[in-house]
Amino acid sequence: MAERLPVAVLGANGRMGSEAVKAVNAADDLEVVAALGRGDSLDDLVDAGARYIVDLSIPDATEANVRFAVEHGMHAVVGTTGWDTPRLDSLAALLGEHPGVGVLIAPNFALGSVLASAFAAKAARYFESVEIVELHHPDKVDAPSGTAIRTAQLIAAARAEAGVGPSPDATTKQLDGARGADVDGVRVHAVRLRGLVAHEEVLLGGVGEQLTIRHDSFDRVSFMPGVILGLRTVADHPGLTVGLDGYLDLGL
Amino acid sequence: MAERLPVAVLGANGRMGSEAVKAVNAADDLEVVAALGRGDSLDDLVDAGARYIVDLSIPDATEANVRFAVEHGMHAVVGTTGWDTPRLDSLAALLGEHPGVGVLIAPNFALGSVLASAFAAKAARYFESVEIVELHHPDKVDAPSGTAIRTAQLIAAARAEAGVGPSPDATTKQLDGARGADVDGVRVHAVRLRGLVAHEEVLLGGVGEQLTIRHDSFDRVSFMPGVILGLRTVADHPGLTVGLDGYLDLGL
Amino acid sequence: MAERLPVAVLGANGRMGSEAVKAVNAADDLEVVAALGRGDSLDDLVDAGARYIVDLSIPDATEANVRFAVEHGMHAVVGTTGWDTPRLDSLAALLGEHPGVGVLIAPNFALGSVLASAFAAKAARYFESVEIVELHHPDKVDAPSGTAIRTAQLIAAARAEAGVGPSPDATTKQLDGARGADVDGVRVHAVRLRGLVAHEEVLLGGVGEQLTIRHDSFDRVSFMPGVILGLRTVADHPGLTVGLDGYLDLGL
Amino acid sequence: MAERLPVAVLGANGRMGSEAVKAVNAADDLEVVAALGRGDSLDDLVDAGARYIVDLSIPDATEANVRFAVEHGMHAVVGTTGWDTPRLDSLAALLGEHPGVGVLIAPNFALGSVLASAFAAKAARYFESVEIVELHHPDKVDAPSGTAIRTAQLIAAARAEAGVGPSPDATTKQLDGARGADVDGVRVHAVRLRGLVAHEEVLLGGVGEQLTIRHDSFDRVSFMPGVILGLRTVADHPGLTVGLDGYLDLGL
Repeated sequence: MAERLPVAVLGANGRMGSEAVKAVNAADDLEVVAALGRGDSLDDLVDAGARYIVDLSIPDATEANVRFAVEHGMHAVVGTTGWDTPRLDSLAALLGEHPGVGVLIAPNFALGSVLASAFAAKAARYFESVEIVELHHPDKVDAPSGTAIRTAQLIAAARAEAGVGPSPDATTKQLDGARGADVDGVRVHAVRLRGLVAHEEVLLGGVGEQLTIRHDSFDRVSFMPGVILGLRTVADHPGLTVGLDGYLDLGL
Repeated sequence: MAERLPVAVLGANGRMGSEAVKAVNAADDLEVVAALGRGDSLDDLVDAGARYIVDLSIPDATEANVRFAVEHGMHAVVGTTGWDTPRLDSLAALLGEHPGVGVLIAPNFALGSVLASAFAAKAARYFESVEIVELHHPDKVDAPSGTAIRTAQLIAAARAEAGVGPSPDATTKQLDGARGADVDGVRVHAVRLRGLVAHEEVLLGGVGEQLTIRHDSFDRVSFMPGVILGLRTVADHPGLTVGLDGYLDLGL
Repeated sequence: MAERLPVAVLGANGRMGSEAVKAVNAADDLEVVAALGRGDSLDDLVDAGARYIVDLSIPDATEANVRFAVEHGMHAVVGTTGWDTPRLDSLAALLGEHPGVGVLIAPNFALGSVLASAFAAKAARYFESVEIVELHHPDKVDAPSGTAIRTAQLIAAARAEAGVGPSPDATTKQLDGARGADVDGVRVHAVRLRGLVAHEEVLLGGVGEQLTIRHDSFDRVSFMPGVILGLRTVADHPGLTVGLDGYLDLGL
Repeated sequence: MAERLPVAVLGANGRMGSEAVKAVNAADDLEVVAALGRGDSLDDLVDAGARYIVDLSIPDATEANVRFAVEHGMHAVVGTTGWDTPRLDSLAALLGEHPGVGVLIAPNFALGSVLASAFAAKAARYFESVEIVELHHPDKVDAPSGTAIRTAQLIAAARAEAGVGPSPDATTKQLDGARGADVDGVRVHAVRLRGLVAHEEVLLGGVGEQLTIRHDSFDRVSFMPGVILGLRTVADHPGLTVGLDGYLDLGL
């Protein structure tokens, strides 16, 4: 039987981290050799023989965690936010000194969500109209969601590149807000409904036809297949990759 | 074989009127005996022996058409807009003098649309959250649609009557318009997309569940079953009825 | 402050029962005074002063539980299956001897699901075509779901009563199974998909229009509002009621 | 102003052909110089100066039409069915003798449909479960639709290539047909509903998430943007291309 890849989970006591521990151990080819929480020493990674880390800690800790991993030749899959351009540049420089090591930093590990955004951007140039409806639980404080805004930006960029004009809209008389928010020329509508988790629908319309691409996230465990995919693939992608779509075979 | 009911169509050259002529003639139990356009004399109704009229003319003509019918003992099914309260009151008074005659004035003859609104209003008190998404072709000038505004008003009234509070919404940070228009406390989102005709979706959410009621109108022929139903039923409803739901067996 | 109604939960250690304990205690006007599991004595209900029971036990136990409650003047809300006609008849007879006591036996406490079935049955006579698509997690052993079969039966009965013929279908050449199962003349399609819980969609189609009624159950907590509604209303419905729709103001 | 490309439409009196005449003339950069029906001589193509043909004739005529076009150096966009392997091979050989000429043979010109199939196949390897629901008007004689069968085959091939096992399914007790047709291991459900035209929905499910890709064809005019795209691009693709996806920038 093949040996399992030795993985350390950082931020292992958080909601995402504890799911990651379960998911890694459930994978045939992976094994958690260390599960670190706040205050644990990074030296434990070395002692445990980890060759991969999953960082799901906090913005204040993630940079030190990942740099430590890279310096010790461990590949890293990172879901923590807080990676601004200076941090990314500095990490890329560090990776230049460790040529065999791979790091994946992904704001979104839901495969379906990443695919939905990529498909929507790809299709956007072929339709006259495009709008986005995102739906979330009513405890969410921001509208639209960050994911919907990013999808709209990708769509807008794809249409601009292909020379497609704005979606037609003859509205001259509206109740305030009826036509949604304008994100780079793409209308985005945010629904808030008890019972929901996180959902996004991209509607593309042309003469006589409609294409709809919808992603539903029912549970945060939906992020785990993306984390596992990241662990299995990160060693084949030396250097820095931002966004899980870089690892998907989208041919995009 | 039973005799067909003799029906006159007014506004017979318009888009709706010409569909009505076809639909009435296609019904086993109905027959078009007169098809009047602009400038034709109302006396033709009498000469043709009409006992029912379908008025799909224009706001300026509809009142005279319907009053003429009532005065001549003909039942009327009316899809033309322009019936404000004074006109309705005056018509009701006239009907008081002609006790056997029925008139149905319906702003919307799409059975599915009328049912969707009625169901949404009925369900609204049982869910914590409710929002509306309406979707139309991009040549529409108003947003939200009149139908969506009426549905929202019915929902708001039903929730108020049942003592249900507002839908929860923790939004504190939004792009302008993201959360839609506010119609009596119900959020309404208007999508405009090439390829669509007229669509409405009412989303109701509670802990762990969602109820969705959606109506799609693909073509104006969708109004015809409602017109036919009106013609078949109007004689059983003497006096004035506003809204097709008054003829449906909704038990509402 | 008003006193809370004293409620006992039977089957309190099961998945549904433990949710019910939480939900009852979370309601302002209700309170769990006894939570019984397998082997606990029904005398505890009396000792605890329960005036209402929620029975979420097992088919073998539910009849004895409910009869005990009725004999002690307690109202009962029952979600356990296993109530065949002889048991129901016998219970109705017992209730005849306890005229003030109410019992609700409901195969389905999801408000949205009950409403969806009722609306679908109401609408079915107004559309030429109707089909059902139900979607569940892939660990479900039966297809279609019991709920979908009941919905199809309600629809078929409503159409028969209104004299509506079968949905049109010109299919002459099909792969085995493509057109779904036939339940009293209504086509029912069962989708099995990882990530889903329990979902049902009734599609009604007429010339130029479609009405869709969809219910999504994301979590078994979706049954709790129905249980709470039952508890609050059962005392106002003396005798035996089967089906939560009997308590809803559907006017159907 | 740039000269318009001279296009001939064959099968110009058919339903698709007459739409094509309108669509080509409506395009800024194209012009119909000949519109041929049954019995018209192919020599008219030469006389009219056509450099492109759109063939929407009948299976018995299409091969001769296209070969004539190629022999006269005209590019061809072909929507007629009936191109089996021997015909395609023979055409490819002919194109070898006319190296600058391009021919596109496409069973489906709806951009959205082609995109939906391509995206579904691309996504299929990343989800545990996949099923297809197709919905059509009730006058359709075959079930499932040819498009749905092709989509299922593409999905099955993509999963096989990626080593993904069958979708999980614990069904042990079913009404005949409930779980749909089995196309290469992919379940396909066919709904028939008055009011609909042609619709396809691919449902992909993983732990905690769902991806849905849906295409709605409301009208056969939805094929025209694909025909126009074909005409604009065919000259850049010398030789034989089967399937519109070969002209789309899918990076697949």
